[in-house]
Amino acid sequence: MTGGALEGLKVLDVSRFVAGPFCAMMLGDLGAEVVKVEKPGTGEDIRRVPPRLGGDSLFVMAFNRNKRSLTLDLRHPRGQEVLRALATRADILVENFRPGVMEAMGCGWDVLSALNERLIMARISGYGQDGPYADRPTFDAIAQAASGMMEMTGAADGPPTMAGTTVIDHTTGLHATVGVLAALEARRRTGRGQMVDAALFDSALSMMMTAIPAQAMLGQGTPRSGNRDRYGAPSNAFPTADGGYVQIMAGGDPRFARFAKATGLDALLDDPRFADSDLRLANVEALEAVVTEWTRAHGGEEIEALLAEAQVPCSKVRTVAELFDHPQVRHRGRILDVVHPVAGKVPMQSAVARLSDTVADLDHAVPTVGQHNVEVLGDWLGYDADQVAALAAEGVL
Amino acid sequence: MTGGALEGLKVLDVSRFVAGPFCAMMLGDLGAEVVKVEKPGTGEDIRRVPPRLGGDSLFVMAFNRNKRSLTLDLRHPRGQEVLRALATRADILVENFRPGVMEAMGCGWDVLSALNERLIMARISGYGQDGPYADRPTFDAIAQAASGMMEMTGAADGPPTMAGTTVIDHTTGLHATVGVLAALEARRRTGRGQMVDAALFDSALSMMMTAIPAQAMLGQGTPRSGNRDRYGAPSNAFPTADGGYVQIMAGGDPRFARFAKATGLDALLDDPRFADSDLRLANVEALEAVVTEWTRAHGGEEIEALLAEAQVPCSKVRTVAELFDHPQVRHRGRILDVVHPVAGKVPMQSAVARLSDTVADLDHAVPTVGQHNVEVLGDWLGYDADQVAALAAEGVL
Repeated sequence: MTGGALEGLKVLDVSRFVAGPFCAMMLGDLGAEVVKVEKPGTGEDIRRVPPRLGGDSLFVMAFNRNKRSLTLDLRHPRGQEVLRALATRADILVENFRPGVMEAMGCGWDVLSALNERLIMARISGYGQDGPYADRPTFDAIAQAASGMMEMTGAADGPPTMAGTTVIDHTTGLHATVGVLAALEARRRTGRGQMVDAALFDSALSMMMTAIPAQAMLGQGTPRSGNRDRYGAPSNAFPTADGGYVQIMAGGDPRFARFAKATGLDALLDDPRFADSDLRLANVEALEAVVTEWTRAHGGEEIEALLAEAQVPCSKVRTVAELFDHPQVRHRGRILDVVHPVAGKVPMQSAVARLSDTVADLDHAVPTVGQHNVEVLGDWLGYDADQVAALAAEGVL
Repeated sequence: MTGGALEGLKVLDVSRFVAGPFCAMMLGDLGAEVVKVEKPGTGEDIRRVPPRLGGDSLFVMAFNRNKRSLTLDLRHPRGQEVLRALATRADILVENFRPGVMEAMGCGWDVLSALNERLIMARISGYGQDGPYADRPTFDAIAQAASGMMEMTGAADGPPTMAGTTVIDHTTGLHATVGVLAALEARRRTGRGQMVDAALFDSALSMMMTAIPAQAMLGQGTPRSGNRDRYGAPSNAFPTADGGYVQIMAGGDPRFARFAKATGLDALLDDPRFADSDLRLANVEALEAVVTEWTRAHGGEEIEALLAEAQVPCSKVRTVAELFDHPQVRHRGRILDVVHPVAGKVPMQSAVARLSDTVADLDHAVPTVGQHNVEVLGDWLGYDADQVAALAAEGVL
């Protein structure tokens, strides 16, 4: 853990599932010391969710590298007391209980900030800490539905469609991390920490691009359009000779010209129906029919290489199996092994932001439940073995 | 701009389109002073992209609030000289040209960091600054296709599907912001800035959840499953009596019990086909048929209210038009007016991370092209009116 940008910072992660653990993991990837607090015995609920390996969930492995695990029964008064003690030692606390739960455990913002005025507390929730919807339990897909994002995804003639991965959990974790790091910068001036409120619903709303003003000011909807770009053509997924698809984006005038020349479809450039961007959008079906005829006659790899050469944005629609030998993935070390005590080495996507001088340390293991009870309570609170054993005997750990 | 967490920091934003401008806008929302650098005359290319209002693009309004605009011809040697001078005054520079373009303009990382060792440079690109794919032009949809994310989105029996908003542009801008803020923290210790490398492809890969280890370690694919959750049932979008859909997530045992009781479908709890989570997944079609029969008999609002009461995660699949009077949107000020000099007040989604003490200042206008040439060159470089006029006469501004 030497040389990380956030070296020396202590993070207490009492969060569950994806958004909170992802936030704390990013802080750990950047060099902070992260302690994951979870339920005695079974640990965090997501540890039981498939797919599983080595008796543990791949979800835990994906979002909890670079952390140590401490068990603590937060419904037990002694567990709450230990959490408050740990919070006096922490720079950052990350939680994603429903609003009010931390308060009910005697660990609300008022209590914790009074104990440690430098503490920064990231609170991740479905709809935010206040307001008429604050109490509603919410997951990623619910936020996609509630925000209008689901309504905008999918085929024009099909139903509203969910993004196939937990994009809102990820963006909410990212927004919380941005808030935490900004609060750290403010703390340098003020000496005081802050509460950071980041919500799944708000995070989904923030990705609506121009849909909100287009509706309000122009009365224009932003309907589903499948893989077709709304503002440029040709830009869509096209079928290939090998039974797959390529996504091609050749909408702008210079890109369209490069595309037509690279593919031998030069006749497109003389066709008055496709003479400028507005006309190409107006005649998009006819244009896509010509492109499809061409893509159906070529393989995905061949098309991708040809259009890369012509500097036209294009990619095969790749499967996960195609990622492992991908030359760019290999060159940039995008898939690295994290180590789980039972499952062993597990390949996982690596940290996104690369800093030129400080390292993103990915060697740290994914912890098993309570693996670091003795170590963390010793390091952070100075408890000796007898004190830890007494807490365990009480069922607090 | 008083009281923002990043008050006092200067950001030079030479980026275009979505990911870069979004990164710089978040820094501005958090209180930094941001100067947007764009082409003389027409300004950034996205200013011509529909939907348009007041002669400008809603895309510019969505991603450039809280910035001042300075025009600069970066292909002109004098323009490059002015950019280098500005970089000596900046804390952070954000760019998303293709790798090598900043170098070709005499403004690569080596040059700029030699001029200003405290500078932090965020470089956003399709595939990262190095490697065999670094040169490929890449947009959001291309990264969705390349990463496996598109392959995982859409109906099980339909084609690979694109998320309907630019989720990867957003996450990449977020990762770049996290990197910048972490580099700021490291700078406090070292006195030196760093280069932050954030790529669309890497950002898309990072959202693949457990798909990569599931494929590598278990030989399990993570196929498209529409709106159906892969690991819990019932969890899907269900049709309602009013012709819309509700997304309901009632997979876990306690949630399933609450759902069955709230809907009057108590018989589900006695049905051996649905007795635990594994059985419900195995018999998901039969289970969803029962749920669908019930949802078809009720309106979306009614279902949402009933299940909120029962603490079962649920939302109507809302349209954009339904957001404006949404009680939570109103309560939390999620839609606020930004001000454009010509278009006037334009409603836009507000900043996501809310900090309890420092404000996210959203009152600042979206700039027109070159609106702040005199002001910025005066403030940052001490140029007088004659010097600015001379640059303009040369065509540099």
